[in-house]
Amino acid sequence: MTSKLERIRHSFGKSFRDLLHVRQGKLNGVVDVVVCPESEQEIIDLLELAERFQIELIPFGGGSNIAGCLSARSDRNRPIISLDMCRLNRVLSVDVQSQSATVQTGVYGPDLEQQFEPYGVTLGHFPDSFRHSTLGGWVATRSAGMQSDKYGKIEDMVLAMRVVTPRGVIVTRPVPRASNGVDINRLCIGSEGSLGVISEVTLQVHRQPAKTLWLGYLFHNFESGVAAIQCVAADGIAPVVTRLNDAEKTALSFAFKAPEAGMKKIVSKGFKLSLQHIKRMDLDHCCLAINKFEGSRKQIRCQRRAVDRVYRQHGGVCLGRGPGESFERGKFDFPYLRDWLLDRRVFADVSETATLWSNVLPLYRLCQVSLQDAITATGCRGWVGCHVSHTYHCGASLYFTFAWHDNSSRVEENYDTIKHAIQDAFMAGGATLSHHHAVGTEHRPWLAQDISPTGVLAVEGLKATLDPHGIMNPGKLIR
Amino acid sequence: MTSKLERIRHSFGKSFRDLLHVRQGKLNGVVDVVVCPESEQEIIDLLELAERFQIELIPFGGGSNIAGCLSARSDRNRPIISLDMCRLNRVLSVDVQSQSATVQTGVYGPDLEQQFEPYGVTLGHFPDSFRHSTLGGWVATRSAGMQSDKYGKIEDMVLAMRVVTPRGVIVTRPVPRASNGVDINRLCIGSEGSLGVISEVTLQVHRQPAKTLWLGYLFHNFESGVAAIQCVAADGIAPVVTRLNDAEKTALSFAFKAPEAGMKKIVSKGFKLSLQHIKRMDLDHCCLAINKFEGSRKQIRCQRRAVDRVYRQHGGVCLGRGPGESFERGKFDFPYLRDWLLDRRVFADVSETATLWSNVLPLYRLCQVSLQDAITATGCRGWVGCHVSHTYHCGASLYFTFAWHDNSSRVEENYDTIKHAIQDAFMAGGATLSHHHAVGTEHRPWLAQDISPTGVLAVEGLKATLDPHGIMNPGKLIR
Repeated sequence: MTSKLERIRHSFGKSFRDLLHVRQGKLNGVVDVVVCPESEQEIIDLLELAERFQIELIPFGGGSNIAGCLSARSDRNRPIISLDMCRLNRVLSVDVQSQSATVQTGVYGPDLEQQFEPYGVTLGHFPDSFRHSTLGGWVATRSAGMQSDKYGKIEDMVLAMRVVTPRGVIVTRPVPRASNGVDINRLCIGSEGSLGVISEVTLQVHRQPAKTLWLGYLFHNFESGVAAIQCVAADGIAPVVTRLNDAEKTALSFAFKAPEAGMKKIVSKGFKLSLQHIKRMDLDHCCLAINKFEGSRKQIRCQRRAVDRVYRQHGGVCLGRGPGESFERGKFDFPYLRDWLLDRRVFADVSETATLWSNVLPLYRLCQVSLQDAITATGCRGWVGCHVSHTYHCGASLYFTFAWHDNSSRVEENYDTIKHAIQDAFMAGGATLSHHHAVGTEHRPWLAQDISPTGVLAVEGLKATLDPHGIMNPGKLIR
Repeated sequence: MTSKLERIRHSFGKSFRDLLHVRQGKLNGVVDVVVCPESEQEIIDLLELAERFQIELIPFGGGSNIAGCLSARSDRNRPIISLDMCRLNRVLSVDVQSQSATVQTGVYGPDLEQQFEPYGVTLGHFPDSFRHSTLGGWVATRSAGMQSDKYGKIEDMVLAMRVVTPRGVIVTRPVPRASNGVDINRLCIGSEGSLGVISEVTLQVHRQPAKTLWLGYLFHNFESGVAAIQCVAADGIAPVVTRLNDAEKTALSFAFKAPEAGMKKIVSKGFKLSLQHIKRMDLDHCCLAINKFEGSRKQIRCQRRAVDRVYRQHGGVCLGRGPGESFERGKFDFPYLRDWLLDRRVFADVSETATLWSNVLPLYRLCQVSLQDAITATGCRGWVGCHVSHTYHCGASLYFTFAWHDNSSRVEENYDTIKHAIQDAFMAGGATLSHHHAVGTEHRPWLAQDISPTGVLAVEGLKATLDPHGIMNPGKLIR
């Protein structure tokens, strides 16, 4: 494809900067042509061609990346091809007995789950970008879905891969675990298109759960909420979703609630009064937690009771199914809000990280202060909220949303100030540059701090080995 | 240390070939000196020195490796230092809240668990070599403990690492998960000393379980046993240990049972008769499965009931606690049998792999036939047994033990015939060269088949980047 629209569409992801530049018409750095291969052999041929003629290749999945992984700005004046994987979108085989499936990587989330349906299985991977992202993109960026507490991140699901590199095709075998030297799968997962094109993946899948149940709880504050969800994670009770909003995010999520009328309004008002006066909840500081449970009726009952016991010990009050179900209905819609806000000169973005349990609250406070100070430094009014959306045995993710009202002409500079503040805080606070959004160009300045300069050297060595001419997505992840 | 004994002790692991050569006095290829650093700085200094003077370094943990990872035979005539990590054996910190711990890698299994005891935590990693192997060795070889079904393999436990390479120290951050490019931990785990020296690791740990329970079951045959344990793994019921012996291994394990007398003998005989005539077990073909359960009394009861239901559906008959408890008593003793057998010219070794559930039985049959044919080809009488000792959502390990009575002078050649047959069968059967014993020199011939030539190229590129002079454990894993 060489139409202007397709070339532009394939030259940007959905990062704050991408959106800003497209809206501002700053279209310097656009791919020259979009190619949609129909087989692995076509990818191999394309890579050979690209090496011979010194053409740069940017693998393209759904285009939803927010870390600059798709940026077509190149230092070297070489032609650039966007390699859109959309035609390689088939589930090749499902091994129901082993609960595994081999899939081409250009498949979008909804299409993948639809192809799995006749087999009664699911991947269980539902990132916010689900509708607009592909399997290949998930694997290339170490994506996390909202049900990661049970199903793991994408790297926990991959059993085998086929990766086309300029030096040949890497092929690994579908085995549950191995001791065959350095883990070759993990060396390709998270490579962000810089080593090669991930063409096929064998994944572990799960039977569709018999039943699901959402439950919401209200905690007096973020501290007691964190303590409660940590207990649940440490006890291995394992709801599929555990999500805890801080006070700011909780207020926002209640503000998005549909207005009630009649009897419902009266009941709701009564419940609110009882929360305030009987449960002594300060409704300005309370925090909403939601859980999703899956399994047989019996399994759900067991898990639900265990969670309820722990949450009550930490002062949690059950809100029933409402908050979770309303979250589920709108779960993929939230990102679109950003565009609506942009029209009103309210600029919003997110940064997320992960850390050990003992560091969750200190890091939360550090990041909050850093973000607020940075927004203040820009002279704008702003808002900062945070939620925990992925919990593990040893720690959890922290997901910050920040927005500011900016009438100045320095929006991008102000963004840089704020974005740098939060990423610097992640580093100073002993956390990682991202839990699931990748490195790309946006987070590259923090990579050496995160994985050490020798770690970066190792990745550079890998790239020099597999892509000696530097044609694969140059400038992303590493220089 | 430069004593002959220490030099020899540090030049061999416990592979079949190692034992044979030491017994035969074939001591060509012995390290020149053994150094025991007391700090990471001393390791850094040593690597600098080694690079300058072109000295080869072989990191040494407990010396229990059976894949030739410690072999001191070098192609190039350079001096060789064995870098014994035994003095770096301290637990540096335990973060009880996060259930994580930072530990120096020279610590032996029992010492590690003893240092964890005051904190009430355990790593949950108990390989057969536990008493004679170190944390560093486990991480360098992607080791698996017998409780891996719950606790995972060692690679699932590592949160952060410090690895001294000739090009600097790789340092990663202790976070539960990240999206910061290629996973640097996984790039060092399984590197078998060929990239650098793993000096420090942050691990996830678990609270000591309140209670444990062993239960044994007898199945009519291997097929029904495999079907049963697969159901348990797929349902996520998760006993900490699931071990299923095939008929040959079952007969062997009953042969090792202490003889009974008096009432016990009569009861035992009665039970045996009831198995044969009421349960219609053919005692020549039946297979023993043992499970270990952990947790609160309630959790154990839940798991035990769920397992019992599944096993009974597959014709399993409960044998009570006896078989599991007797396994636990002798669990670390079995390997010593090999030396006793060697004195009687009975030669024994093991090879193990992992595969998807749908391939467990086909692979089992292929390997059995391959081993038996190979033993027959040597003109010796032999014995082949197999057990499954690690189960996962998508598959399981298969662990083969083989022995043959060899009065010829061609013991090593006959060993090569048999070992090659089983490793070739793993490859032909779509499995991996090893589930937890590493590549070393013994399995290196199969690496390119397992991870593809381009996968090997990637590992070579990593080595060339981090160890350009090839001083780190040369010849292991890759050439």
